[in-house]
Amino acid sequence: MAIGFLIHKTLFSKTKCVKPKVNLDFQKDNPKVVHAFDIEELGDKAVYCRCWRSKKFPYCDGAHTKHNQETGDNVGPLIIKRKDA
Amino acid sequence: MAIGFLIHKTLFSKTKCVKPKVNLDFQKDNPKVVHAFDIEELGDKAVYCRCWRSKKFPYCDGAHTKHNQETGDNVGPLIIKRKDA
Repeated sequence: MAIGFLIHKTLFSKTKCVKPKVNLDFQKDNPKVVHAFDIEELGDKAVYCRCWRSKKFPYCDGAHTKHNQETGDNVGPLIIKRKDA
Repeated sequence: MAIGFLIHKTLFSKTKCVKPKVNLDFQKDNPKVVHAFDIEELGDKAVYCRCWRSKKFPYCDGAHTKHNQETGDNVGPLIIKRKDA
């Protein structure tokens, strides 16, 4: 019985490690998620998410902190700002 | 012998699936990779990478296409541009 379990687990387990996705759940029906913003519309400062875990994506909501803690990653946002902002 | 292999593979295999990192190799000695740009310094158009596979990171070099094909992901860049660019 145990052997059967081990064989099954090794050969058929769904948790096969495939190359990891970066975006786990944002607009998964969209073939490629691209965002474009006009410089003229930007305020003094915009902080854009690059960890794809933000609930306010494409904007950063600090979710990278939890992601980095959970995975040992080191991702952080992209900041576009006026010089004196 | 085979059973030993199966037990070893199940219990000790390094390919244990941990939560995936987003950034696999960019500045891994940096605790958090953040980029900031002044609006005044931007040209007509800047395309920023969000898949963390670009060889020109933080700028996009199209690497998301290969990443999306290999993983079934759907990530794409962030574009900051002048209205008429």
